[in-house]
Amino acid sequence: MNQLHEPTIIVWSQEMVRHTLPKRKQESHKGSFGTALLLAGGPVMPGAALLAGLAALRSGVGKLEIGTSRETIRSIAHRTAEATYIPDALQNIANGSMPFSHYRAIACGPGTLPDAVTEAAVDTLLTAETPLLLDAGALSKRRYPERTAPLILTPHTGEFERISGFTQEEILQFPASCAHSFALEHHAAVVLKGPSTIIALPDGRVFQNSTGNSALAKGGTGDTLTGMILGMLTCHVRYEHAILNAVFLHGACADEFIKTRSAHTMLAHEISELLPFVWKSYE
Amino acid sequence: MNQLHEPTIIVWSQEMVRHTLPKRKQESHKGSFGTALLLAGGPVMPGAALLAGLAALRSGVGKLEIGTSRETIRSIAHRTAEATYIPDALQNIANGSMPFSHYRAIACGPGTLPDAVTEAAVDTLLTAETPLLLDAGALSKRRYPERTAPLILTPHTGEFERISGFTQEEILQFPASCAHSFALEHHAAVVLKGPSTIIALPDGRVFQNSTGNSALAKGGTGDTLTGMILGMLTCHVRYEHAILNAVFLHGACADEFIKTRSAHTMLAHEISELLPFVWKSYE
Amino acid sequence: MNQLHEPTIIVWSQEMVRHTLPKRKQESHKGSFGTALLLAGGPVMPGAALLAGLAALRSGVGKLEIGTSRETIRSIAHRTAEATYIPDALQNIANGSMPFSHYRAIACGPGTLPDAVTEAAVDTLLTAETPLLLDAGALSKRRYPERTAPLILTPHTGEFERISGFTQEEILQFPASCAHSFALEHHAAVVLKGPSTIIALPDGRVFQNSTGNSALAKGGTGDTLTGMILGMLTCHVRYEHAILNAVFLHGACADEFIKTRSAHTMLAHEISELLPFVWKSYE
Amino acid sequence: MNQLHEPTIIVWSQEMVRHTLPKRKQESHKGSFGTALLLAGGPVMPGAALLAGLAALRSGVGKLEIGTSRETIRSIAHRTAEATYIPDALQNIANGSMPFSHYRAIACGPGTLPDAVTEAAVDTLLTAETPLLLDAGALSKRRYPERTAPLILTPHTGEFERISGFTQEEILQFPASCAHSFALEHHAAVVLKGPSTIIALPDGRVFQNSTGNSALAKGGTGDTLTGMILGMLTCHVRYEHAILNAVFLHGACADEFIKTRSAHTMLAHEISELLPFVWKSYE
Ligand SMILES: Nc1ncnc2c1ncn2[C@@H]1O[C@H](COP(=O)(O)O)[C@@H](O)[C@H]1O
Ligand SMILES: Nc1ncnc2c1ncn2[C@@H]1O[C@H](COP(=O)(O)O)[C@@H](O)[C@H]1O
Ligand SMILES: Nc1ncnc2c1ncn2[C@@H]1O[C@H](COP(=O)(O)O)[C@@H](O)[C@H]1O
Ligand SMILES: Nc1ncnc2c1ncn2[C@@H]1O[C@H](COP(=O)(O)O)[C@@H](O)[C@H]1O
Ligand SMILES: [Mg+2]
Ligand SMILES: [Mg+2]
Ligand SMILES: [Mg+2]
Ligand SMILES: [Mg+2]
Repeated sequence: MNQLHEPTIIVWSQEMVRHTLPKRKQESHKGSFGTALLLAGGPVMPGAALLAGLAALRSGVGKLEIGTSRETIRSIAHRTAEATYIPDALQNIANGSMPFSHYRAIACGPGTLPDAVTEAAVDTLLTAETPLLLDAGALSKRRYPERTAPLILTPHTGEFERISGFTQEEILQFPASCAHSFALEHHAAVVLKGPSTIIALPDGRVFQNSTGNSALAKGGTGDTLTGMILGMLTCHVRYEHAILNAVFLHGACADEFIKTRSAHTMLAHEISELLPFVWKSYE
Repeated sequence: MNQLHEPTIIVWSQEMVRHTLPKRKQESHKGSFGTALLLAGGPVMPGAALLAGLAALRSGVGKLEIGTSRETIRSIAHRTAEATYIPDALQNIANGSMPFSHYRAIACGPGTLPDAVTEAAVDTLLTAETPLLLDAGALSKRRYPERTAPLILTPHTGEFERISGFTQEEILQFPASCAHSFALEHHAAVVLKGPSTIIALPDGRVFQNSTGNSALAKGGTGDTLTGMILGMLTCHVRYEHAILNAVFLHGACADEFIKTRSAHTMLAHEISELLPFVWKSYE
Repeated sequence: MNQLHEPTIIVWSQEMVRHTLPKRKQESHKGSFGTALLLAGGPVMPGAALLAGLAALRSGVGKLEIGTSRETIRSIAHRTAEATYIPDALQNIANGSMPFSHYRAIACGPGTLPDAVTEAAVDTLLTAETPLLLDAGALSKRRYPERTAPLILTPHTGEFERISGFTQEEILQFPASCAHSFALEHHAAVVLKGPSTIIALPDGRVFQNSTGNSALAKGGTGDTLTGMILGMLTCHVRYEHAILNAVFLHGACADEFIKTRSAHTMLAHEISELLPFVWKSYE
Repeated sequence: MNQLHEPTIIVWSQEMVRHTLPKRKQESHKGSFGTALLLAGGPVMPGAALLAGLAALRSGVGKLEIGTSRETIRSIAHRTAEATYIPDALQNIANGSMPFSHYRAIACGPGTLPDAVTEAAVDTLLTAETPLLLDAGALSKRRYPERTAPLILTPHTGEFERISGFTQEEILQFPASCAHSFALEHHAAVVLKGPSTIIALPDGRVFQNSTGNSALAKGGTGDTLTGMILGMLTCHVRYEHAILNAVFLHGACADEFIKTRSAHTMLAHEISELLPFVWKSYE
């Protein structure tokens, strides 16, 4: 690790959140925020599509389209009634039959299998100049093509080990340096998730989140974060603010939860239920 | 646009709402309000049927029947348990095998595809003397037959452009004039939706709504409005009051939402959840 | 109507409710309240099974089994997770292959079609000495066999016309007399539903309900009442108290609703949501 | 019963709960709590999987996998969106094709049929050194192999009669002695459920629960308890504390419920909804 540069770490503060959260303009209509595409869910993980979908809908999106299996649509559509659906979108993107360059932002991965279809879909998605977030099943060890639109990767420690080649020990001891180095090399924003999440940008800046608690240490909270970043991308002008504010508010909702409830008991979808109130408190 | 008459615009006020909201008579039973028919939803937009259905059930309906695909029934029936269902109603209306003149009011369009089946169904629906609301997938450029029962069209700007022949610029600059002219020509009530919704009646009167905010700039809010108008048609004596009060309360619910929550975070079904309290405040 | 005896009408009062509501004994277990069977729902009315099921579960039941179509089970099981299911129960009762004499109480009808299967099932159900409630699709013009267990019929005016031979005018003008006469003749408890529901017992007593309002004038509220009576039958010692208290609390929940919300907006399942608090207020 | 030793009974007190509830460490991640496996549900009892799943998710689990039928997954996945699913897990464990020794804890039985598949699956599960809870359909009369990992059985009186050979009279008159003797003989922790639940440990200690009321006397509350114990096993260091605290909090939630609501009206899933607040009050 001696070749790793020790980056300056900026703590993303309440003040910064207050200054960078967007105003929802009175004259806007749903088209003003564009359409976000969420590629998520699958036969054994339908819930991931639901959690990420709910979070995106709560995070400023204009319109949300969820590309998932028919089975998952059946399971979740009544809980994300405000979204519309694209059956088998991952397959159709993989085989080139589905256009996607018109989306304002795309997120792929929660609840999808890390298989050949997902790989091929990600290859295709990377060709478009659309802000793209890859998480969970869409995270693999690869090289990324040059693109001008933001690329955002949201691995937790284990996933970062898998995609970066760093050892778990290196990541745990030097999270900021590892994320920083990876972000620079791959021209990607890295959200290295953990008790204090690190956000490393491709321009070299490194941020640390200051919210969140162990109520988040439960399956599904990462899916919620992916949805929140996706939604925030559609209503923020600068993508880095979208990431930083999503990570901040995600943790702030968990902090709100444990004021009155045990940290052992939170469910990931409750982050999205608290978000309307918590977001308001920073406006 | 020089041929367009500049109409007088009446702002539909809180006072007017208070004076025109119906009393639900103590001696009434569900039959007193008749049965409303909602034709909505489909494979990729099941949520639209749910949103419109929930809104109709909350808006004074006696009985609600939802005509939609079997798949959509499966998806939503437990969220609109108070409704009953007609599988494949659109097809059956289109092919003339389903009677519908006994309904108190009919709404068609949220989440339906603008295809030949929908077109044929609308053609058939227009033959009956039943108040008829057309939205979304049921809005197309057409001529309407003469009828005595109210015809209500609820386009947003883009849809109005499609059905009216006016350019987007004309509509954005002279919304009231465009809606007015269209309403007169087609003997239809036009609800031209946007940040300040215009309601133009076939008798020449033009109203402007005074409620609502950018929390409504998100997919699904139009479906909720359609359901609200449908429900209100069954409990108001005059159809124009049904429209005006539905549009007003729809916006007022969103205004209530943002008192405590961020405008970025509202989901369309929450309008229906707030409606019981907001409606009460005007009684 | 001159042959009709004008019965004395007892208004079922708050005091009577307070004195007859059962105590749930500390030493009880679910078996103490037995198992109730609800036969309800079907392809186009799945919601009726949900509404009646929720209401039964909230009304003191020990265990609830819902006999309905497989499709309906799929639709509703997650909303009535505390119940278990019997697919195709109506058919199996009709063809004699399903035993049912072990149930504490049975209700049949909400959302079922008034067809030959239902008729045959009702014929079979009437042979057992189990408290039996017939509603909606299970109400038809018939003669009832002699039995010692309570038989309860819950028609609204239209249904009572159909099963009794009285004209609508007679029923509306002399509801208590009509119900009284029918109850005596058929040895059945008649719950003649309307703005002031009449409860006529086979022993000649006639009661009138004093709660409820026009928020109940909407599809589904009758299904909720059926479930409430079914549940109350399992926890009350005397079946007539079960009926009277169910009708009273059903109306009282609606009265609670409109304290803060418009009567136009209530959904039938909300009666069941208010019941825990309203019931408590009479204990 | 004269051969039965009268054991000393320790009442598990509020103080003991306060001292033994785990802290959720700030530095934890979902992996810190491991993955729990819930084998539950089936065609006629899908709700049991939902109730136990919700309860486990609320009880400190890191990740939850629910092994159930495909039909049940379809029914419940949107209510337990934070879990992932294993279709046909019971069959696959029974036929040896599914590994399970990596789970932190396993619970089997709510809503499963007491058939040959379940029996074979339980036989297989007993071979692994993983904390194992057997309930409902997984409880049968059998001998248990020697194992070092905890074995937990959660019968109610009727189920205990079936698996123990004690008569119902013996169990009702000497519950602690019966549970104690069974626990010693079978090296299992016995949770003998009833109005005052007895917890007998294989080391001879016997505890009595001091919370709970007749609101729990309704179908589904046992499924919720199973899920709570499963979840608590993953976040407690000592398995006996997991059991004792789960039983205590389960009853305490019911006690909280009846402060404002009638005991007749509680639904089992509401225990899980109250748990976050009730748990907090003991932290
Ligand atoms: N102990 C913790 N404190 C704060 N945040 C956490 C903790 N554990 C997990 N998280 C957050 O929860 C989410 C888990 O994502 P994932 O691992 O993908 O499910 C990430 O946003 C983490 O930063
Ligand atoms: N910025 C806004 N302010 C007020 N109302 C809005 C705004 N944006 C959308 N709406 C309303 O939201 C609904 C959107 O309908 P639709 O475009 O069909 O989904 C209409 O009732 C619009 O009037
Ligand atoms: N205007 C009203 N006032 C009081 N109760 C009503 C009113 N309308 C309907 N109900 C009750 O609502 C239920 C309707 O049942 P059903 O007609 O079977 O859906 C019955 O319990 C009626 O007594
Ligand atoms: N009357 C009661 N008082 C306290 N707890 C009860 C009572 N009845 C049932 N329970 C609890 O509710 C659960 C019922 O489990 P089961 O019989 O498997 O559904 C057990 O945890 C019992 O201890
Ligand atoms: Mg993740
Ligand atoms: Mg629309
Ligand atoms: Mg009825
Ligand atoms: Mg049990």
